Amino acid sequence: MAVFKVHGAVFSSPSMRVFACLYEKDLDFQFIPVNMGAGEHKSETFLSLNPFGQIPALEVGDQKLFESRAITQYIAEEYADKGTQLTCPGKAKAPFLVWKEVEAHQFDPVASKLSWELVLKPMFGQTTDPAVVEENEAKLCKVLDIYEARLAQSKYLACDCFTLADMHHLPHLNYLMGTPVKKLFDSRPHVSAWVADISSRPAWSKVIAMHKQ
Amino acid sequence: MAVFKVHGAVFSSPSMRVFACLYEKDLDFQFIPVNMGAGEHKSETFLSLNPFGQIPALEVGDQKLFESRAITQYIAEEYADKGTQLTCPGKAKAPFLVWKEVEAHQFDPVASKLSWELVLKPMFGQTTDPAVVEENEAKLCKVLDIYEARLAQSKYLACDCFTLADMHHLPHLNYLMGTPVKKLFDSRPHVSAWVADISSRPAWSKVIAMHKQ
Repeated sequence: MAVFKVHGAVFSSPSMRVFACLYEKDLDFQFIPVNMGAGEHKSETFLSLNPFGQIPALEVGDQKLFESRAITQYIAEEYADKGTQLTCPGKAKAPFLVWKEVEAHQFDPVASKLSWELVLKPMFGQTTDPAVVEENEAKLCKVLDIYEARLAQSKYLACDCFTLADMHHLPHLNYLMGTPVKKLFDSRPHVSAWVADISSRPAWSKVIAMHKQ
Repeated sequence: MAVFKVHGAVFSSPSMRVFACLYEKDLDFQFIPVNMGAGEHKSETFLSLNPFGQIPALEVGDQKLFESRAITQYIAEEYADKGTQLTCPGKAKAPFLVWKEVEAHQFDPVASKLSWELVLKPMFGQTTDPAVVEENEAKLCKVLDIYEARLAQSKYLACDCFTLADMHHLPHLNYLMGTPVKKLFDSRPHVSAWVADISSRPAWSKVIAMHKQ
């Protein structure tokens, strides 16, 4: 079996996306912490892995990958017969592709701004901007109304199975459930049940356990 | 052969991405213009195609898709043996997945802000914000420096073949090449040759011809 080397950080959302995927696939990996405070992500060594100087980066055999969603898609396709399926075949391929893009282009831009303002800025001693929070809470409500309708028809976003389209949400969900934004998820019953379901997966618990090491 | 119905607009970048894909695949389609000025994209009929109320949306058989990059990926996979290949098999799959995400997460956020400020705002009688232009020109320079290095090694972004990773750039490239931002592409020889190459594809000429109908 190939050796997976993940260069990243335990509190980085895109890194968590990759850890979750490897745990879901039951693939052993070597975690190589990148000290961003010391600027290691801008070092020549790291830039040879990802010229954009962003974590995570994956090495497997002679392949080097970056961009978290490219890494998870690659692992899901190349190791399709290991662990959780994570993709949808047949008729469910279309909604799988659609809802994977919905996470990336509708949920993530809003959720990442809220995570930054409400979790990461306080962690770094910076001041939360309430206007940015208010604006993005309103945007998140619109997204979650659509998720509520979708999850009333389908157990998970793409189909009746857990896939990358759900899994990619986990890092920001994890951050936001510890903030007042939690109420926006709790007030929508299907969204709330979906969050509880996907957050309780054993693979995700292993990602959270990395925070305490 | 299935009938493709594309609900969109000829000047919408995401719609152009889908038109380009269908022309590359040599697939006939029915174009159904959505009059955004009249709010048709927020009508009940359109929301049944895309609950986010954004163009384009695709109907094919009993499948309904939205999010332009989901649509192009679906067409590329489902009609793999028609027209241009557009995806990379084997060893090139990893760079294909990576560079497709690079377009979506590194190029598009910057290019779409520049297209908005320099092309669409003037088209709608609004005033360009020079501070936003300056900030995003600086960001685009950093992205294009990395593209220049990549395209010195590889004829196209993912591999030596034209793929979705290149094609997805075309709508914003088309807008930006008519603005002063063109100089940022022209001053990088490999980037400049790549822009000229992918912009001269017959399928893309058909997309541009739709602007004049």
